[in-house]
Amino acid sequence: MQTVALQKISSTKIDFQNLVGKSVEIQGMIQNMRILSWGGFIILRNQDYTLQTVYEKSAINFNPEALKTESAIRIKGIVKAAKIKDLAISPRDYELQIEEVTVLSEPSEYPHPLDISKKELKVNLDTNFDYRPLTLRHPQQRSIFKISACINASFGEALSELGFTQIVSPKLVFSGAEGGSNVFSLEYFGKKAYLAQSPQFYKQIMVGVFSKVYEKSTVFRAEKHNTSRHLNEYYSLDYEMQISESYEEIMHTLANVLDYIFGKLQTQCAHELALLEVELPSIKNYLVMKFDDVHETVFKEFGKDFRGDNDLSPEEERLICSYAKSNFNTEFVFVTHYPSDKRPFYTMDDPEDPSKTLSFDLLFRGLEITTGGQRLHKYEDYVAKMNRMGLSPKEFESYLQTFKYGMPTHGGCATGLERITALICNKSNVKEASLFPRDVDRLTP
Amino acid sequence: MQTVALQKISSTKIDFQNLVGKSVEIQGMIQNMRILSWGGFIILRNQDYTLQTVYEKSAINFNPEALKTESAIRIKGIVKAAKIKDLAISPRDYELQIEEVTVLSEPSEYPHPLDISKKELKVNLDTNFDYRPLTLRHPQQRSIFKISACINASFGEALSELGFTQIVSPKLVFSGAEGGSNVFSLEYFGKKAYLAQSPQFYKQIMVGVFSKVYEKSTVFRAEKHNTSRHLNEYYSLDYEMQISESYEEIMHTLANVLDYIFGKLQTQCAHELALLEVELPSIKNYLVMKFDDVHETVFKEFGKDFRGDNDLSPEEERLICSYAKSNFNTEFVFVTHYPSDKRPFYTMDDPEDPSKTLSFDLLFRGLEITTGGQRLHKYEDYVAKMNRMGLSPKEFESYLQTFKYGMPTHGGCATGLERITALICNKSNVKEASLFPRDVDRLTP
Repeated sequence: MQTVALQKISSTKIDFQNLVGKSVEIQGMIQNMRILSWGGFIILRNQDYTLQTVYEKSAINFNPEALKTESAIRIKGIVKAAKIKDLAISPRDYELQIEEVTVLSEPSEYPHPLDISKKELKVNLDTNFDYRPLTLRHPQQRSIFKISACINASFGEALSELGFTQIVSPKLVFSGAEGGSNVFSLEYFGKKAYLAQSPQFYKQIMVGVFSKVYEKSTVFRAEKHNTSRHLNEYYSLDYEMQISESYEEIMHTLANVLDYIFGKLQTQCAHELALLEVELPSIKNYLVMKFDDVHETVFKEFGKDFRGDNDLSPEEERLICSYAKSNFNTEFVFVTHYPSDKRPFYTMDDPEDPSKTLSFDLLFRGLEITTGGQRLHKYEDYVAKMNRMGLSPKEFESYLQTFKYGMPTHGGCATGLERITALICNKSNVKEASLFPRDVDRLTP
Repeated sequence: MQTVALQKISSTKIDFQNLVGKSVEIQGMIQNMRILSWGGFIILRNQDYTLQTVYEKSAINFNPEALKTESAIRIKGIVKAAKIKDLAISPRDYELQIEEVTVLSEPSEYPHPLDISKKELKVNLDTNFDYRPLTLRHPQQRSIFKISACINASFGEALSELGFTQIVSPKLVFSGAEGGSNVFSLEYFGKKAYLAQSPQFYKQIMVGVFSKVYEKSTVFRAEKHNTSRHLNEYYSLDYEMQISESYEEIMHTLANVLDYIFGKLQTQCAHELALLEVELPSIKNYLVMKFDDVHETVFKEFGKDFRGDNDLSPEEERLICSYAKSNFNTEFVFVTHYPSDKRPFYTMDDPEDPSKTLSFDLLFRGLEITTGGQRLHKYEDYVAKMNRMGLSPKEFESYLQTFKYGMPTHGGCATGLERITALICNKSNVKEASLFPRDVDRLTP
């Protein structure tokens, strides 16, 4: 017996530029095929590429007619320069001249129940979701989740650079964060547990520890409505931070994080953005409006009177975004100073008008993608506000102890990964940005 | 009304070296204080530092006796070179000569219920967990979770560099991954849902889409045992990949990922490792042993006969690790070829001996930290194996459809973040590496 010495693995990416004329081997799946009179094309998909490979009928060891899409294959071929029209191909400057094809494994049912070879996947959403293991292999579907992965990673990178520490908080909790509604519950060894609606309590606790923290995690909402804006399980991009002067620092941080994310998307997902035919937004300029001013503006500009409402309706969110786009050429609107009675108990009221809060939503392309604000940081203030709202401080004591030990002024926000991804990808239903969406009717696959 | 132009925020870190003699302002919490005859020290903690600040009695605007630890404060002071003995300080080369202290907020109860000013936090685990919002502020406790955050981030970085795509899969699932035991269940809009024990099904599905994927996520096990090795909710570092020749590629990848993580810990967590007085392991060399050979070796070396057992007991895992350390100077042992009847249905049997599997565990410092292996990739093989094991393929059809459409040979593994963190930090109980541990008796804070 002897030990194995670590063998360094490097990226499987091929240095095409320096291998033109050389033979290489690539393993992957057959994304697509075209059989022509003189030969044909096989589009090979793997973790690095959607690569065009080409063969001449006279020079091959396999029967193209017998090949099935979504087979796992290995192709040996010569790297050549290529001029490719098909947007779904990446890289587009090189192709392989096939020398050898080895089929490693094949579909057991063929043809597939759905055709994923067309530019657009033309199936309704339910069919798309029922056949997710197949439909996700479509180039446009893959693009959505490459973009999602980039947003997910960039969110953490941007905050790490600003001194934030990543945390992992429990999803089985003793209480719903917002105080009880829309929460899934379950039996937990003779006790009742809930599925976390947000990491709110825990990220606040952790501000006492690390001053600035972020968490990326799945959260759960037992919403009974099946809408295009809601998921019963979604991925929340959260941060929470000590602040120096004002809740506006939370908004500035968010604008910076989004700007960082858009920069990364530009460099890392150019292919996917092109494939989806979408343009990246810019947050170099954004609008900041008070809640009441949104009502006034919508009334003045669109003749719609929501001025009595203590929340923004989906229609009003769409109208104010369209106003911002037309008049200020920005797709981002921070709405601040939401009414106190619509925000959770931990929200800091505005000292200048306690009926309003030092909180905000960020609206993007007609939809709220982020909710945030400053939080209470004094124990006495929590007790007073909870009593006022009919909540029991005793029930929350394991969380409230945090504020007895000393806490800085702080606040934070939560951004829904599926929402921002869907909007960037120009998808009208947030479920399209969830790999395996969960709604009232759907628990599979 | 006009738009706000994005203001770039940069890191809050201070360039001490170039600011010696200059005045700076820092905000944070009072980690610790020492009042001496001539003046005193205040240790200020924030997202970037645990910084020593110093004052002379004659030159201050505040009453040191009135200061309380864990108050939020702002300190204005002159940067000076320092020679500091206290390991808990970082950076250790600079300190602030205090000019001004502003108290921003104070604890509402003082003194604190526990003393977190000592080098070691000497409380039992239950007390530690009950007072988590306070105990986590102790420097050694903070260090554990800085190390955990570094492992968490590095895991993803290492895999991204190797072409893996990050995925987010559902935690509300239609079935327990391993076939039904130890699963939490709940009512989901009139249906029964389960909390995911692992992202197993989904990461396999996603190999069909992206060839190589990883996921970092919370998973749930309804284990009724309260041991030092188990949590009812833990964070699983998963990846899954197409393989070319052998399941050994999965192990090689893991060794590379761990090597990357240890490198990052070395550079990013040197302070925390020193504070915990622990040494980083090295996976430059590791042992690979077959399951049966572990039994034989333990019998031969320690006279303990486990040769009839079809699993490794905790004792045997400890013994074989101690053997590897003494004889081969390595802390890492891959055990391969576990018996088929102890591995889940999706595991690939060894074609040379179908009573064994192409699977592995990675043992580190006496404990299994990773389980992995090659999976079946043919639909017919799933149906046959499930029938043999008394499982219903029909119940798993939304997952099994994946293998009808074509799948590459593939496999992957799952590493417990809390386990590897606890072992690196030399903590004997895995719960110590969970911010807010969940066990049969604990659901708070």
